[in-house]
Amino acid sequence: MAAPLRIALAGLGTVGAGLVRLIESNGALIASRAGRPVEIVAVSARDRSKNRGVDISGYAWEDDMTALAARSDVDVVVELVGGSDGPALATARHALKGGKALVTANKAMIAHHGLELAELAEANGVALRFEAAVAGGIPVIKGLREGAAANRIERIYGILNGTCNYILSTMEQTGRDFGEVLKEAQELGYAEADPTFDVEGVDAAHKLAILAALAFGAKIDFAAVDVGGIGRVRAADIAQAEALGYRIRLIGMADVDDQGNLFQRVQPCLVPHNNPLAAVDGPTNAVVAEGNFSGRLLFQGAGAGDGPTASAVAADLVDIARGDTGAPFSVPAAELAAFAPADAGHRTGRTYLRFVVADRPGVLAEIAAAMRDGGVSIESLIQQGRPEEGGEVLVAMVTHEGPEANVAKALALLEGSASLAEAPLVMRLLG
Amino acid sequence: MAAPLRIALAGLGTVGAGLVRLIESNGALIASRAGRPVEIVAVSARDRSKNRGVDISGYAWEDDMTALAARSDVDVVVELVGGSDGPALATARHALKGGKALVTANKAMIAHHGLELAELAEANGVALRFEAAVAGGIPVIKGLREGAAANRIERIYGILNGTCNYILSTMEQTGRDFGEVLKEAQELGYAEADPTFDVEGVDAAHKLAILAALAFGAKIDFAAVDVGGIGRVRAADIAQAEALGYRIRLIGMADVDDQGNLFQRVQPCLVPHNNPLAAVDGPTNAVVAEGNFSGRLLFQGAGAGDGPTASAVAADLVDIARGDTGAPFSVPAAELAAFAPADAGHRTGRTYLRFVVADRPGVLAEIAAAMRDGGVSIESLIQQGRPEEGGEVLVAMVTHEGPEANVAKALALLEGSASLAEAPLVMRLLG
Repeated sequence: MAAPLRIALAGLGTVGAGLVRLIESNGALIASRAGRPVEIVAVSARDRSKNRGVDISGYAWEDDMTALAARSDVDVVVELVGGSDGPALATARHALKGGKALVTANKAMIAHHGLELAELAEANGVALRFEAAVAGGIPVIKGLREGAAANRIERIYGILNGTCNYILSTMEQTGRDFGEVLKEAQELGYAEADPTFDVEGVDAAHKLAILAALAFGAKIDFAAVDVGGIGRVRAADIAQAEALGYRIRLIGMADVDDQGNLFQRVQPCLVPHNNPLAAVDGPTNAVVAEGNFSGRLLFQGAGAGDGPTASAVAADLVDIARGDTGAPFSVPAAELAAFAPADAGHRTGRTYLRFVVADRPGVLAEIAAAMRDGGVSIESLIQQGRPEEGGEVLVAMVTHEGPEANVAKALALLEGSASLAEAPLVMRLLG
Repeated sequence: MAAPLRIALAGLGTVGAGLVRLIESNGALIASRAGRPVEIVAVSARDRSKNRGVDISGYAWEDDMTALAARSDVDVVVELVGGSDGPALATARHALKGGKALVTANKAMIAHHGLELAELAEANGVALRFEAAVAGGIPVIKGLREGAAANRIERIYGILNGTCNYILSTMEQTGRDFGEVLKEAQELGYAEADPTFDVEGVDAAHKLAILAALAFGAKIDFAAVDVGGIGRVRAADIAQAEALGYRIRLIGMADVDDQGNLFQRVQPCLVPHNNPLAAVDGPTNAVVAEGNFSGRLLFQGAGAGDGPTASAVAADLVDIARGDTGAPFSVPAAELAAFAPADAGHRTGRTYLRFVVADRPGVLAEIAAAMRDGGVSIESLIQQGRPEEGGEVLVAMVTHEGPEANVAKALALLEGSASLAEAPLVMRLLG
């Protein structure tokens, strides 16, 4: 059997400890499938003595993470520290510049610095892999980069954040409101103490930017993602959607539009019951890639957790052990295109709009007039009979197919109206 | 850019013509992603002059398929002829012995001769790839072989035949019976004129045997698959299942049991509504792999058709162009284990049993006594009030969790009973 692939582990949090367990537990199987053993040689983390439930005494220790890259007994640095910059980025740069392959689960770092790191990897002739950065244990980057490699990807979309999906599907099943379910999710460990990155859509946007770069051969452009979160979705919205035959999911979606511009958006959407994403409950992730020959491909599984994430990291290690070290973003970094961000106004579709209005005469007429003046045609309108607390009433509507620009124009007409108790909630219907 | 990967195409049916179209349409994209162009150099089929909707005049022609393997201007032979033996197998053997890589969509050939062909490929240092042989355009072989490579696979199961899934889901949606829906499926092109291989489960069994070999590192053993079809499922069974919270799907399933033996079965099963396979409608395929770290991974998409199948063939070609040529069954052929076939009697689970009985007193008592004497505990029993044509009555029951051997014993006690108008229909509940 060939010489072992020797890895250094930067970061020993839950995923790092999971990877140690995985390699201990499945090492023989991995060696057989990879054609050579995958061995941990050295580790680094903030605190050497912390109890992680795994024995690290057999591995060399480095206080300074970047020193891992300098070790002559290391082939691959595995970065599991997290954070877009700081020690993670320093470790990544050192590794690639030092001629080591880099495997990372760090979505924020790849979303912000993926192009630079890919260029570094290619310049130094080493692999850069980040399967675990998107959708946990699901091999969706492999599916796009290799499984669908012969297809022009027409659209990619999916449920990319397990926390949001847990919250939305639990709200749906229990009829409870966002705040209450978020609190429970935090107690159960499905949401962080500070859930901002998850519930505001930033985490999903990191993953979407990575998928879009791969799918469309684009220079990664996280800043251009139109990001929305789920914090304003109410139990009443979920009930309205259900009555219309839809479920609400936080959807990341990207395509190249008619003008050749790159559209990237994360937003709660109404997903029809017959779409497989509607059936995705709990902290699960699912990604759909539509190829011009493959048709619709769906990849689904656990979006987070130490086991699934470690599984994805180890899949990258097996690929590297087997000698599969193609371009990080499928095509060479120099061939990645700099797309202009799409103007969503050109897009057509159906939109769900929900207003919280004062319970008094004339409000509905005001909204209807704004829709008319914006050129928005209303397909169905539901005014909730019973006022909410504080005498507010919810008015929800679904538009006919039409340009998003018209919806924006109608909403601009309503801006500042004394009839609206809060800004309207706008969600698209997944077509 | 590196030299082109030159391919020879054996077989120009719908998939072959689809591959020609794909390479014409997406050639530049493929070259960019693969790092080199993929070019068709030579073709062979039964009839040179047949109109296939694609122009093959630019390719060299061989009357004898096996001659493709002898051409010095060819790197890869793509076998799209079909059939487990005959010209397909001859072409495959010639190609590998001649030092050409082989890509095939031929599930029957791999199910019957996969081990021999893998040994040939390894002995000659060339690639053998067969992504298109399982689940059409879905990269499930890649998902298992690479994406889940670091996992011990605990169970693999899925919907592996689009024809059967179309028929069962249409029966479910329309309440019509098998024969009528099969006829319609044939008219719509979802079923062959001779549907035997599909509806009797043989096609799904070919795919299951391939998946099991990959998942468990097993010497492929098609003969050991316990194969059942959907021809005896009635609309009434689907209605009963629905009432119990289940949908009927033809499921291929494999695992290594407690005794270390390989269990492989294709059988219509009752799938609970909360399992993602229950939502899979129409001619779609879906495969679930349960890894010991990844958890449950689901791969879903079009299970057949020229576009999806060509997409999978081309994905294999891109891998070969990139230089990824590991062992065909993930581990080297010499390391594949010869598992003994499992004795299903040891397995425990819940079973759906449906009897067609004469409408007269004492029949139910006879069945109940046989269940008691077999040691089968009945969870629910439904006797349909209104007799079917011919005075027959359907009796359906679901057992409590228990050994399959007990169900077999109970049914053996009823064998030859004058009360039964036909053999009982036995379906397992997917746990």
